[in-house]
Amino acid sequence: MKIVLLSGGSGRRLFPLSSDARPKQFLKILKDGRGGRQSMLQRVRGQIRAALPDAEVLIAANASQAGIIESQLRGEVDVVLEPERRDTFPAIALACAYLRDAMSASPGETVVAMPVDPYADIGFFQALSGVEEALACAKLVLMGIQPAAPESKHGYIIPGGRLRGGALKVESFVEKPDEATARGLIGSGALWNAGVFGFRLEYGLDLSGGASYEKLLEEYGSLEKISFDYKVAEREPDIAVIPYNGMWSDLGTWNALAAQMGGYVTGNGLLERATDTYIINELGAPIIALGTRSLVIAASPDGILVADLAQSPHLKEAVGTLELQRPMRKERGCGEYTVLDRIECANGAESLVRRLRLSAGRSMSFRAHERRDAVWTVASGVADFTLDGETRRISAGGAIKIVRGQNHSIAAVTDVHIIEVQTGELLDETDAEKFEKGF
Amino acid sequence: MKIVLLSGGSGRRLFPLSSDARPKQFLKILKDGRGGRQSMLQRVRGQIRAALPDAEVLIAANASQAGIIESQLRGEVDVVLEPERRDTFPAIALACAYLRDAMSASPGETVVAMPVDPYADIGFFQALSGVEEALACAKLVLMGIQPAAPESKHGYIIPGGRLRGGALKVESFVEKPDEATARGLIGSGALWNAGVFGFRLEYGLDLSGGASYEKLLEEYGSLEKISFDYKVAEREPDIAVIPYNGMWSDLGTWNALAAQMGGYVTGNGLLERATDTYIINELGAPIIALGTRSLVIAASPDGILVADLAQSPHLKEAVGTLELQRPMRKERGCGEYTVLDRIECANGAESLVRRLRLSAGRSMSFRAHERRDAVWTVASGVADFTLDGETRRISAGGAIKIVRGQNHSIAAVTDVHIIEVQTGELLDETDAEKFEKGF
Repeated sequence: MKIVLLSGGSGRRLFPLSSDARPKQFLKILKDGRGGRQSMLQRVRGQIRAALPDAEVLIAANASQAGIIESQLRGEVDVVLEPERRDTFPAIALACAYLRDAMSASPGETVVAMPVDPYADIGFFQALSGVEEALACAKLVLMGIQPAAPESKHGYIIPGGRLRGGALKVESFVEKPDEATARGLIGSGALWNAGVFGFRLEYGLDLSGGASYEKLLEEYGSLEKISFDYKVAEREPDIAVIPYNGMWSDLGTWNALAAQMGGYVTGNGLLERATDTYIINELGAPIIALGTRSLVIAASPDGILVADLAQSPHLKEAVGTLELQRPMRKERGCGEYTVLDRIECANGAESLVRRLRLSAGRSMSFRAHERRDAVWTVASGVADFTLDGETRRISAGGAIKIVRGQNHSIAAVTDVHIIEVQTGELLDETDAEKFEKGF
Repeated sequence: MKIVLLSGGSGRRLFPLSSDARPKQFLKILKDGRGGRQSMLQRVRGQIRAALPDAEVLIAANASQAGIIESQLRGEVDVVLEPERRDTFPAIALACAYLRDAMSASPGETVVAMPVDPYADIGFFQALSGVEEALACAKLVLMGIQPAAPESKHGYIIPGGRLRGGALKVESFVEKPDEATARGLIGSGALWNAGVFGFRLEYGLDLSGGASYEKLLEEYGSLEKISFDYKVAEREPDIAVIPYNGMWSDLGTWNALAAQMGGYVTGNGLLERATDTYIINELGAPIIALGTRSLVIAASPDGILVADLAQSPHLKEAVGTLELQRPMRKERGCGEYTVLDRIECANGAESLVRRLRLSAGRSMSFRAHERRDAVWTVASGVADFTLDGETRRISAGGAIKIVRGQNHSIAAVTDVHIIEVQTGELLDETDAEKFEKGF
């Protein structure tokens, strides 16, 4: 069995910890059972290893996520990189072609494509072993979760008669019904759609006419932006669903996540006369919650959230009304940068202060800025700086100036922290994008 | 009439906006009636000017507050500086000697010593004009506020018979009674003690045996740390109180302050499905309050507070349990510094990233650091840097390195922002102190 973990995800539902540049599946906020913290990606990888030791895992991710996946899973899974973010149908099509062309999977192989971040008991992953058998009587196999409540954020599967094993025939789908409708559906046996799709590899390959991995990769930017649900599942008459009755959540909202964090305070925080209040603080300065009730308080360089737990599912709408701004922090496998400060200058320009962290042995190249200078000061560690081909070794307390037009790169000799002060003309959007790609 | 405004104040009750380095009377968070914001100091100064145009104002402040008072009042009042923080008795004694020796006040002059930060209607200041008349029948005159509620945080004055004008004779004092006792006291006519003390200058001078300003200044560090209430008012049999029935608050707690801010959001904040929620954000990144009720949310580089409005009076205790840390920001009249980041280094040392802001025409000198280097990068503006006697002019995008043992100073040619990265051995407490005095 090949398991394709789809690593997409918008960053807005867990603001300010997640962002488009730092999707929730990579946040290390879940207890790992050994006193440390792990990400959703790491947890799911571990559960698959335990429940399905023979399954091979392929992660379908955006190209920008390569570094952090490498850093969190240390090369123990295959990764297929999408050159840009589209939707689940193109991602699954590309992954199928990759399975055949790069991983030599046979056409009869069972493929299970699923989100990278379900928060579930191990039983959920054990239930995936039933996909194989269910494929004997359906072309597509889904996982259906026994609903815990008539929540309107889910898609519902309406099952029909019993098939082989525990699987049921799928009659139809209802997308995000209102609560009253959901209640009625549940009464007649409907299940939440977990976003899991099981099929034979040949079925997945046929969906894109058997195109090669190379070809799909090349044409990726012109593939239709459409979900696998919509493009395939809703049009396929021959579908089975495996019901699963156990703990399952997508941890997509703060109230769901807070309950799984294993503690009320993460980071520098203090609860005083507070009840049912969660603090998650990624800033250095302290958070005090005084006399509060049923709140989640989360702080990162991107912002601060104070939300009533029950109302936290509405966060996405609230964040949507915020002015878009460049993310304050980006993580890559080899390091991260954090915006420390922005200074408005008299002429309307803006200076930017960033901290770059780079792990020993890793390097980064930057494109030349056309209209901005920068001074880099090494705050800790040692690194080799190359400017227009010339290399200098600089250690803590040393600094180097990069003038506009110079290509530059850093190779970290030890773990290194660098403070960068960028000055010059105002960053326009194109600059900002370049600047982020440069990282 | 001479009005002595006592500018003391601990910074903990309005955490994280106020700190010992940034007392609440200087926070510009009150509406100024012209669309801007003013501090408590500025508001009181304006009210005294309007209510008592002939009164001269002297501010009794700690030496470290000289710059910010100058910056907020632009030299329009006299300031007497206490070399260290003691209590109100030494502060008033020093101010009286200053009135005689430096401002040539006559012994018969009326002096009113009072806190710098009452939040009151103009009527409160108009009522001070009654002190003069009341001094004809008492040696010490207080202001008594008609209690709005049986609050236990106040001192209560128990009045007796009627004296000349509207004044009453003071029978006794009760300090911070419990609520039940306070209710009984109010029923029998007790008043809140507003901390205002009116007397003839000679009375104030006699309290320290007629010592000169020079002598008191010299001996200031050895004067008894005691309040004027305790040392004088509670022992003086001949006291009158002027009752005042109108709006008065010390704005010492967040619920009191929030109600006077003239708006729910100050700074970058967003209220979504929230009721009775106040946001005061001094950070650049946004605060979102979602579905919250009766909260104050305040953020500064020193920390974040989320407090139930009704419980906010307990803040001082909560802040008291926080680990003491160097303040993240200091304001002076000529500029401010803000700590942007601290980076722990492999050897246990710490690098410090600070932003210094200095106004055009102002300069700052720094003592040499013995065990630390620094790189300064100009992020905006132009400044002259002097290192061991040699001066260089540097503008935005330029940088300069200061090695341990070098004396250094900055003179701002225009308004300037400088990013400093300090590296080297761990700051111990003595270093930290020097470093702060250096500023």
